Amino acid sequence: MTHANIQLDENGHLKHFLSIYGLDRGLLLSILDHARSFAGVGDRAVKKVPLLRGKTIVNLFFEPSTRTRTTFELAAKRLSADVLNINISTSATKKGESLFDTLQTLEAMHCDMFVVRHANSGAAHFIAGKVAPHISVINGGDGRHSHPTQAMLDMFTIQQHKPDFTRLKVAIVGDILHSRVARSEIHALATLGAEEIRVIGPKTLIPTDIEAMGPRVFHNLEQGLEDVDVVIMLRLQNERMCSALLPSEHEYFHLYGLTEKKLANARADAIVMHPGPINRGIEIDSSVADGRQSVILQQVSHGIAVRMAVMAMTMGSLADTPTLESRDEV
Amino acid sequence: MTHANIQLDENGHLKHFLSIYGLDRGLLLSILDHARSFAGVGDRAVKKVPLLRGKTIVNLFFEPSTRTRTTFELAAKRLSADVLNINISTSATKKGESLFDTLQTLEAMHCDMFVVRHANSGAAHFIAGKVAPHISVINGGDGRHSHPTQAMLDMFTIQQHKPDFTRLKVAIVGDILHSRVARSEIHALATLGAEEIRVIGPKTLIPTDIEAMGPRVFHNLEQGLEDVDVVIMLRLQNERMCSALLPSEHEYFHLYGLTEKKLANARADAIVMHPGPINRGIEIDSSVADGRQSVILQQVSHGIAVRMAVMAMTMGSLADTPTLESRDEV
Amino acid sequence: MTHANIQLDENGHLKHFLSIYGLDRGLLLSILDHARSFAGVGDRAVKKVPLLRGKTIVNLFFEPSTRTRTTFELAAKRLSADVLNINISTSATKKGESLFDTLQTLEAMHCDMFVVRHANSGAAHFIAGKVAPHISVINGGDGRHSHPTQAMLDMFTIQQHKPDFTRLKVAIVGDILHSRVARSEIHALATLGAEEIRVIGPKTLIPTDIEAMGPRVFHNLEQGLEDVDVVIMLRLQNERMCSALLPSEHEYFHLYGLTEKKLANARADAIVMHPGPINRGIEIDSSVADGRQSVILQQVSHGIAVRMAVMAMTMGSLADTPTLESRDEV
Repeated sequence: MTHANIQLDENGHLKHFLSIYGLDRGLLLSILDHARSFAGVGDRAVKKVPLLRGKTIVNLFFEPSTRTRTTFELAAKRLSADVLNINISTSATKKGESLFDTLQTLEAMHCDMFVVRHANSGAAHFIAGKVAPHISVINGGDGRHSHPTQAMLDMFTIQQHKPDFTRLKVAIVGDILHSRVARSEIHALATLGAEEIRVIGPKTLIPTDIEAMGPRVFHNLEQGLEDVDVVIMLRLQNERMCSALLPSEHEYFHLYGLTEKKLANARADAIVMHPGPINRGIEIDSSVADGRQSVILQQVSHGIAVRMAVMAMTMGSLADTPTLESRDEV
Repeated sequence: MTHANIQLDENGHLKHFLSIYGLDRGLLLSILDHARSFAGVGDRAVKKVPLLRGKTIVNLFFEPSTRTRTTFELAAKRLSADVLNINISTSATKKGESLFDTLQTLEAMHCDMFVVRHANSGAAHFIAGKVAPHISVINGGDGRHSHPTQAMLDMFTIQQHKPDFTRLKVAIVGDILHSRVARSEIHALATLGAEEIRVIGPKTLIPTDIEAMGPRVFHNLEQGLEDVDVVIMLRLQNERMCSALLPSEHEYFHLYGLTEKKLANARADAIVMHPGPINRGIEIDSSVADGRQSVILQQVSHGIAVRMAVMAMTMGSLADTPTLESRDEV
Repeated sequence: MTHANIQLDENGHLKHFLSIYGLDRGLLLSILDHARSFAGVGDRAVKKVPLLRGKTIVNLFFEPSTRTRTTFELAAKRLSADVLNINISTSATKKGESLFDTLQTLEAMHCDMFVVRHANSGAAHFIAGKVAPHISVINGGDGRHSHPTQAMLDMFTIQQHKPDFTRLKVAIVGDILHSRVARSEIHALATLGAEEIRVIGPKTLIPTDIEAMGPRVFHNLEQGLEDVDVVIMLRLQNERMCSALLPSEHEYFHLYGLTEKKLANARADAIVMHPGPINRGIEIDSSVADGRQSVILQQVSHGIAVRMAVMAMTMGSLADTPTLESRDEV
């Protein structure tokens, strides 16, 4: 069994959602389909469906992230689940309890799902490998490795504007080296058949082996943007600035910050994305972030819908999902 | 459009609740009427009504206040809303996100209401001016400026004991200068037509231009209390003691602390109020705080009802409210 | 009226749950009976019953404990109550509010139940003596005094495996001196008629007057375990190590750590318990903690059921409970 198969149950249904890697096109399209049906819930007067009523979802956060925790908490509540927020760094580990004992304890409390956020790559996989059979694990971001719900909400946002992935050129711009988002997006775009994936950034922030994953590498933003349909800007982690991998913020913006002028190199109907929070004036100019091509706030809305979809799917609360075959005519 | 009009929608209904200033008597009476209907909910076996089911209310606290946060959280839950508690000082701003981006992100998550607490005067107004049309903002206290739900729960408490505001003499005692509560109460009492409003305190703690707002100023507690129907004691912020604005706590209590003896100057049926938390033995003697004229705990109970009323009204969840005209015969 | 009677209302029903001391066998059996009916809720698809819908339960924690707070929060949510988590050390007391004022304020907000966790012995009793008649108080652990829900979940776990308490030899091992758990368990076992209760530990960690409470004292683990049906290991509080009451951790494990070899002195079908979190390799060997005789994780599951039972009973939400007489034939 490969690293990725742990995500599927014996019938090939999604059991855990840990990484895009290892999931096939049919499954990703299923997630997008279900997300579409949940996207309307946020606009209703009563923004709730009873799918996970009486289930207990634990936000198990080993590194703090108000934004990610908030989106998962909202998604869970809109599915009518009960939510427990547990910040591990400030609780059990103080008393010296091992991670494994913490997990077993939460399982014994009949919790149904762990949303795991951890600074170490592979933490969510590790936990999924340890939990009892009735528990689902969702990766809310692990180290540099993976952030699959972010990738899928980006795919959902792209699909809303450009339904046919096979005709898309997509550029991902910025600190590819440290970005779990970039890694997950490249896998998702490749699986969904994107025509061309590009990564754009300074040499120090692009992994040397990235081309093996498929993308074309550019070190010049203007050239890299030429003719693309989708521009995904990455957040510049401020802490990288100290690590000598980067020149000054000013210099970075000059070379890799997205301005209207540089964006003009892309297709006229290109959309601009960013996972947030935005560093205005560092990786993106405000006129672009707030401009007509920006879909950044749509990404946030779609994040709730995608997380609702993944939560409901892994809990087996949705009817059977279409297979790759039945989807291929789409 | 005046500063205050942002609080009303095009039909003159309450859209945001930011300050008492700018709201007319009819609207304040409406709030009190609705609060009366919610006051019974706390005594029921099932303390919940489904008015805001499926709505998401965000407690957006830029300065900590367990008590205020708790009352808004309870009010929201008793209206069946989902509640998110977000402490901004410890979250997004760490990552350098701007306030505006935080707001837009929460809006994109389809949140319906922000309860804002902020150390800076005007913060809630600023936010109300920026949010999307479907969002309501409630001021949970901003700097020295305004604390309108506190003022309205005080008005509700007064009305329960003394229904006719036009025949009331009300004294507000203590640190008027730094008190957002005092400012809001003066506006509310004036709008509701109180016969006389007095402020009592040391010269250093009373703004020099206060008489322009209407109240009579007293520096002697005994004289100021003479013949009043309502005594509102303010909390002495301990941090003021260090700022050379005040003599010692002992001296303050001697001059401005409310004792039974001093209270005897007021009318025999006068009620004593305090927004809490109480500094026993500093601004008020325990025998008064716990005495027969004290309505301090009633204020707390009414706080939930008033907040439920304001939340339901701003969300448009209540039937149309009586106008000033139809109320005038009351 | 004795210290304990405060726990019962005028009809002898459970009103507060503060300590095992003072409750009779019939009442303890009632708790176990009700817990049994709640134990199944955790296995249902919808893990919720509507018994406390619309009630407000406050977790009033004066010392932090994520695990205990979590179990009470889950129990409350599965009874459909609304839950407020209040960490007192970080809130009201900062502003100098007295405990009594905090309690009165929460009462005025129409809260229905306080779950109290406090570092001082007697805190929950003190609070139960002060609250308004409609409020129930549950002791979530107070100083060295009492931890009655932990004791009852242990009794429930024992009963699942060994239904007849009157034929049981039970050993409690470790730091008896500082353990509120041990104290509550001794009372519960004595009330339920256990044949023999033993305490095992170093002289420095066993109170000199313990035999007056009933138990036999052993300072040798092998001897103390001989022929027992139940072994309850206590958590070694790391902070005791500094206090010169104990030799090194290594030495402690050598003398009082439970290994498979030492456990062989107990009956072959003896069960091993621990309140958690476990210090593996200090008070218990991993092979025992995870071994076939361990029921440690069952204790966690039963903790939710027992807390649901106690919450529902004190709130008067259950039908009348069987009396001691009607139970005696069991």
